[in-house]
Amino acid sequence: MNLHSVKGTRDFYPEEMRMRNWLFDVWRNTALQFGFEEYDACVLEHAELYTRKAGDEITEQLYSFEDKSGRHLSLRPEMTPSLARMVLQHQKALSFPLKWFSVPQCFRYERMTRGRRREHFQWNADIIGESSEIAEAEILSLLLTVCRNLGLTSKDICLFLNDRRILNEILDSIGVPEQLHPNVMVIMDKRDKVSSDAFTELLQQEEMALSQITRLNEFLAIPTMEELASKLGETKGLISLRKIMALMTQSGLGDFLKFDVSIVRGLSYYTGMIFEINDADKAQRAICGGGRYDSLLSTYGGGSIPAVGFGFGDVVILDVLSDLKKLPSFARRLDYLVVPFSADEIGMALTISNQLRQKGKSVECDYSLKKVKKALQRADELNVEKVVMLFPDELAAGKVVVREMQTRQQKNVSIEELTS
Amino acid sequence: MNLHSVKGTRDFYPEEMRMRNWLFDVWRNTALQFGFEEYDACVLEHAELYTRKAGDEITEQLYSFEDKSGRHLSLRPEMTPSLARMVLQHQKALSFPLKWFSVPQCFRYERMTRGRRREHFQWNADIIGESSEIAEAEILSLLLTVCRNLGLTSKDICLFLNDRRILNEILDSIGVPEQLHPNVMVIMDKRDKVSSDAFTELLQQEEMALSQITRLNEFLAIPTMEELASKLGETKGLISLRKIMALMTQSGLGDFLKFDVSIVRGLSYYTGMIFEINDADKAQRAICGGGRYDSLLSTYGGGSIPAVGFGFGDVVILDVLSDLKKLPSFARRLDYLVVPFSADEIGMALTISNQLRQKGKSVECDYSLKKVKKALQRADELNVEKVVMLFPDELAAGKVVVREMQTRQQKNVSIEELTS
Repeated sequence: MNLHSVKGTRDFYPEEMRMRNWLFDVWRNTALQFGFEEYDACVLEHAELYTRKAGDEITEQLYSFEDKSGRHLSLRPEMTPSLARMVLQHQKALSFPLKWFSVPQCFRYERMTRGRRREHFQWNADIIGESSEIAEAEILSLLLTVCRNLGLTSKDICLFLNDRRILNEILDSIGVPEQLHPNVMVIMDKRDKVSSDAFTELLQQEEMALSQITRLNEFLAIPTMEELASKLGETKGLISLRKIMALMTQSGLGDFLKFDVSIVRGLSYYTGMIFEINDADKAQRAICGGGRYDSLLSTYGGGSIPAVGFGFGDVVILDVLSDLKKLPSFARRLDYLVVPFSADEIGMALTISNQLRQKGKSVECDYSLKKVKKALQRADELNVEKVVMLFPDELAAGKVVVREMQTRQQKNVSIEELTS
Repeated sequence: MNLHSVKGTRDFYPEEMRMRNWLFDVWRNTALQFGFEEYDACVLEHAELYTRKAGDEITEQLYSFEDKSGRHLSLRPEMTPSLARMVLQHQKALSFPLKWFSVPQCFRYERMTRGRRREHFQWNADIIGESSEIAEAEILSLLLTVCRNLGLTSKDICLFLNDRRILNEILDSIGVPEQLHPNVMVIMDKRDKVSSDAFTELLQQEEMALSQITRLNEFLAIPTMEELASKLGETKGLISLRKIMALMTQSGLGDFLKFDVSIVRGLSYYTGMIFEINDADKAQRAICGGGRYDSLLSTYGGGSIPAVGFGFGDVVILDVLSDLKKLPSFARRLDYLVVPFSADEIGMALTISNQLRQKGKSVECDYSLKKVKKALQRADELNVEKVVMLFPDELAAGKVVVREMQTRQQKNVSIEELTS
């Protein structure tokens, strides 16, 4: 019998689960503070939701199958198509702009490397129905506040910002026909992962001339918006990015941001601002990424609804926090351990335990009827604050012995006082 | 384009999600108070985890498929096999007894009726490694405390209790060979769902004589443990149930319990106490059910490890609470709405919003630059407690106007006071 989880998937034992819940709680609570509302869809979707648009890597990595009625189903590889579906389905009843978030598990069948498994949980937050740069500023403020709440500073991470329109403007300026832009961008997104020669070769396969490739590489090496503006002029993409930068500075989060013309993002549906968060050297996979996608909903048959959002996985961020030694302790802890020392006291132990729980305390009962020393060892293992010991003589007087584990102080306390 | 979720699965729009989170929070917080630890496994498992043991209805309802490497995988139909797998895999590192809980989504491809979809979330809690009836008492106390925390009383629901050993003892006493017990119990579990004639016919197919079936029906109509004891004697199953009843009375939860010899439970792995919670008339599907399963872990290749646990789905309980009008309101609510009235104040609106969020407040910003009346309408829609209005004159003096929505009182407050 194979006792392992399926290759690429994870089990969460209690300590790992406490870590996961800690991360999810930061995601959820910060999103709620920013006025976002939580939603969810089923991990199982119609496969056509992902296969309609060819070209994305994501459609080649689907976990797909037919159900017993012949429906073509997939485990979701990302949340945005489900979000688009849900918004379009109830479009008339919803009042825009929507600010929605979710923490879905997503599946991709792919080669495994550090920070990349076949499933992960991915916090998604999106603003739907707001076309101004305020939406970008809200989304990025939420993200960076979460990073701060996780203990990360602008010394640890950087938010690299770009705009798909700028990339289109660059490709226009070097004469790449518009219909080739999507394929060229897929290649540009892989630039960090392949050799310079391979990059050239891939672009040549898309009918780009060597002179165009040289000019593209020159553009992608431009370090500042000012220098890019001097080559391209004040284009739509650059003007929009400047507005976002100004709003983020007003929000007190400007020091996290850096313009980076080489940011592309893998998904084909982005139409405006795009970004990634990474460490300042971009030494590893991006912690999270996203952007504006004003055309996606119309590809599913809806009207044109502007949208901006991101995905933030649980794997890379926990690796980053672990490397930086910024993870808190995830040891178990409990308020009380209640210990009877003979079978006669078990009934009273149950009663006291339940009364303490009704007061909101977390209570474990040790029914093993061991000696005091063993019970205190168990209390240490469980990381409890107080031990309630039930001895016949004290019980006869309506009392129990309460020991504070940290100070090792013990005193007799009346049961009434303890549980009221 | 099909915008619906897959048949039998659900979307959770924000209000539905708040309801789901409310239920999950009661499950989680109560389990933590009882000293249970949360775990999780992936929804995707090796199919053999479910297909090893034939006969269970569950194996015919699997969502199964092959991945790109030919692995036979299934979406989990229940959590207990994953729990068994995880416990056995780390058996040596774990200190027993374990008290673990989880809130997995489970999938079964089956006909849909009220309270039954093709997926649901199912709270599971189990105690592994404790053979005494104290484990049953802890599990049932946890469950009934959750029911009380959800607003249910012993007038609304009843915990129907039985023991698989009692069923075996009954079948022994009427001469049904042991090897037929599992199949006969599957039929007995369907007794409420089929006609009396169909029930007889199904049992005849398992080689039971009409006289045996008559005696079985007589046994299943016995209302009390006392009467059953007068027929069967004081058997192991009955003695064990009496101990559980006594412990539950000591826990102050005895009034929820009722012996019911007709409770069988569908899963074949139960070995001792079994139970269901339902309304007093058993008018609908069980709210939850479970029992002791001391042999399951050995069927997966482990040693014999005693275990007791339950599954508690999210669908039936919400129907029950809704029917009883015991659901609280799940309307959205926020602490603050911050409203600038011209583009010049947007920067300050961002700053104030983020400062309030850092204080732990939930804050929405209305950037639509509408008139005051519209802003207050929006505040009503959002169910916010206070509106912070940014007017140029007050801002020049370092102040904003704060309106309490409930009392309609407004006053000028310094920004420093508001945000510190």
